[in-house]
Amino acid sequence: EIFELYGFQPLETPAMEQLDTLTGKYGDEGDQLLFKILNNGDYLKKADQTALQQKNSKGLLSSISSRALRYDLTVPFARFVASNHTQLPIPFKRYQIQPVWRADRPQKGRYREFYQCDVDVIGSDSLIQEAELCQMYDMAFARLGIDVIIRLNHRKVLSSLANLCQLSDQFMSMVTIIDKLDKIGWDAVCEQLVGIGMQHEAIELVRKVIYSQSIDDIKNLLTDADGIDAQKDLQQVLDYLKGYTFTNTLQIDFGLARGLSYYTGCIFEVIVNTQNDHQANIKMGSIGGGGRYDELTAIFGVKGLSGVGVSFGAERIFDVMNELQLFDQTTTSASSLLILTMDETSFNKGIDLATLFRSNKINTDIYPTYGKFQKLMKYANKSGNRHVLIIGSQEVEEEKYTLKEMHTGDQQKLTSKEIIQFFCD
Amino acid sequence: EIFELYGFQPLETPAMEQLDTLTGKYGDEGDQLLFKILNNGDYLKKADQTALQQKNSKGLLSSISSRALRYDLTVPFARFVASNHTQLPIPFKRYQIQPVWRADRPQKGRYREFYQCDVDVIGSDSLIQEAELCQMYDMAFARLGIDVIIRLNHRKVLSSLANLCQLSDQFMSMVTIIDKLDKIGWDAVCEQLVGIGMQHEAIELVRKVIYSQSIDDIKNLLTDADGIDAQKDLQQVLDYLKGYTFTNTLQIDFGLARGLSYYTGCIFEVIVNTQNDHQANIKMGSIGGGGRYDELTAIFGVKGLSGVGVSFGAERIFDVMNELQLFDQTTTSASSLLILTMDETSFNKGIDLATLFRSNKINTDIYPTYGKFQKLMKYANKSGNRHVLIIGSQEVEEEKYTLKEMHTGDQQKLTSKEIIQFFCD
Repeated sequence: EIFELYGFQPLETPAMEQLDTLTGKYGDEGDQLLFKILNNGDYLKKADQTALQQKNSKGLLSSISSRALRYDLTVPFARFVASNHTQLPIPFKRYQIQPVWRADRPQKGRYREFYQCDVDVIGSDSLIQEAELCQMYDMAFARLGIDVIIRLNHRKVLSSLANLCQLSDQFMSMVTIIDKLDKIGWDAVCEQLVGIGMQHEAIELVRKVIYSQSIDDIKNLLTDADGIDAQKDLQQVLDYLKGYTFTNTLQIDFGLARGLSYYTGCIFEVIVNTQNDHQANIKMGSIGGGGRYDELTAIFGVKGLSGVGVSFGAERIFDVMNELQLFDQTTTSASSLLILTMDETSFNKGIDLATLFRSNKINTDIYPTYGKFQKLMKYANKSGNRHVLIIGSQEVEEEKYTLKEMHTGDQQKLTSKEIIQFFCD
Repeated sequence: EIFELYGFQPLETPAMEQLDTLTGKYGDEGDQLLFKILNNGDYLKKADQTALQQKNSKGLLSSISSRALRYDLTVPFARFVASNHTQLPIPFKRYQIQPVWRADRPQKGRYREFYQCDVDVIGSDSLIQEAELCQMYDMAFARLGIDVIIRLNHRKVLSSLANLCQLSDQFMSMVTIIDKLDKIGWDAVCEQLVGIGMQHEAIELVRKVIYSQSIDDIKNLLTDADGIDAQKDLQQVLDYLKGYTFTNTLQIDFGLARGLSYYTGCIFEVIVNTQNDHQANIKMGSIGGGGRYDELTAIFGVKGLSGVGVSFGAERIFDVMNELQLFDQTTTSASSLLILTMDETSFNKGIDLATLFRSNKINTDIYPTYGKFQKLMKYANKSGNRHVLIIGSQEVEEEKYTLKEMHTGDQQKLTSKEIIQFFCD
């Protein structure tokens, strides 16, 4: 709903991509984690004979498999835009919520099939996009009930640092080290920066910058072209956000690095706000992140399209919401009212009541056989229904039925009209 | 919503199943249409050496692939229930809406990846389930806006016919022929029944039964045990439906056969009602179907669980809705209002208005750069937005903005308050 509120359209891409579309996009490790689809029919007929004889699994691959399951949503999106860019409205704004597959060893928080939820704009350089992505993060987490900090930085803050420290050739090493600040603390970061050959003075500059809290603070620190670009862009994003009131906290964080090498402009990250007492015990890394990457579609031969987007970590968000008990009982059981009946007459009454309740939009289930109260209650407990309506001969006669709240055990006798009122109020 | 209204819970199963879970469940053709996943790592190391040397693609399969993509939702559901039946509430009611994959030659209406939408109850013999499935079909198609005929028959009507015609050993041939009635007409069916050795008298019985319109009509025709069972079951379903008012047409159809051999009780099929003038030109086979199949989980070693369920043909329903123009413009464009601005001042005003509109739940997009009216309008046309709001210096001054309806070309000048009223009324 929030994505569409901001003018984004849904996109779904096929589960399978051409193997050569995916190969080489995620590094060697990524290539190994792709789930490859075996060609159909007599696949060995067209297999590479040399590779076959040498039992070369890697060499044989491209001749017996031409497709693989998608590994993320970014590459399929780039492929889609590159293939269709002449037909698409540019800027093209899309969101995509689909599973991806990785042949990883499954462990806590890591699955072989999991959902990604991405929202991206392609073909617009305007920083209004960055501002609106911040707003969407804010609105979405407000709706989910998690108090978050939205961190914002600019990749050029880091390249400016590397320039000023005369360490441009070690840019990625520096970024990787700074990226660990949250986990290992400043002292360890400092040590590792020394390790890649940084001088004391340079490290002091890094420290000053990453602990600065406003754009003004770095004005006199980052004075090269990259530094000035970064300040200008970040200021523009903040200016665009002036008319918007945040529910969560937007925070400029010059220490935010984000591991991935392809970002070129603003970068984002969302973390749970553990300053909030209610959330103090949540141990979780980032639950969202993204940034601007120029030339998103260049790998598919279409140049000049800048992309900016963010991602929601669906499984992690689920875990946090679970821990904060943000899912209420009704979310986990589709049916809110279960009808149990004691004999044939009450069963027939139950059918009529079920029809009545459903026409009043009350989710209703009726146990398909009557009698054997203990068996019925066993089912009621197992099914997780919040409310049970018990109908016996007495109830049919009185036209009042016993409504039981399963958690508390509270029960009351109500007419069908009162039951409808109970659920619809 | 309708599935949950009837107490069904959503279920999702993984895209991949163990290859041996799927193999042999869909016949030889089905086995060939499975998309198999190549094992990861050095898959040739554990490959069957004989099959490898003989270049036996089929023989090699099980040693280099242990997983495949699901081919339908029924087998994964049966596998899930069989593995978890001790934990599940029985009867277990679930719906599942997920893509399935088949390595078919793509053609009109046939895709390699497509959605199935199934709703099933497992572990209940009660015919209340059949009655409620009819109601769910009725409600769902009423909501989708398609006028349909829900056909109902019982598999035992057909086996009774085969018994009475002393043709039990040719039961499936007979069913397959009767199944073609809609397509080839009675004369051709008659000819083919002669072809499998049916006598004139027997064929006359078939004709009488399949053209009967009520249970009473067949009372004196189908007098064996199967025939009596069928009549009793169908009557019970109709009795359970007495308190429910259909929007669509429920029709007993003794000629309904459904190709699949595993049905054992009631069978269902949904077709577009072409008697309805509005829908007279729709050429489409069934858009839904299902039935009861005893021993659904027996192939996975769990006996005694009867299942009944129906399926919605998502792609076909989409095609019908498309032909009936049931998707309105707002469905195809996520964004209902696009803001176009002529200069920097109006762009900034546009940002404020976008924030205002969004806080009033109006889906709003703002074109990220201002000026060049023709370029803006070209984007507006391509993006498919229904309404465009044009802001220039004059509009900013007057605080009235030009709202243009893209299809009609109508435009009017409105205040921000009037615009909100326009969209929210």
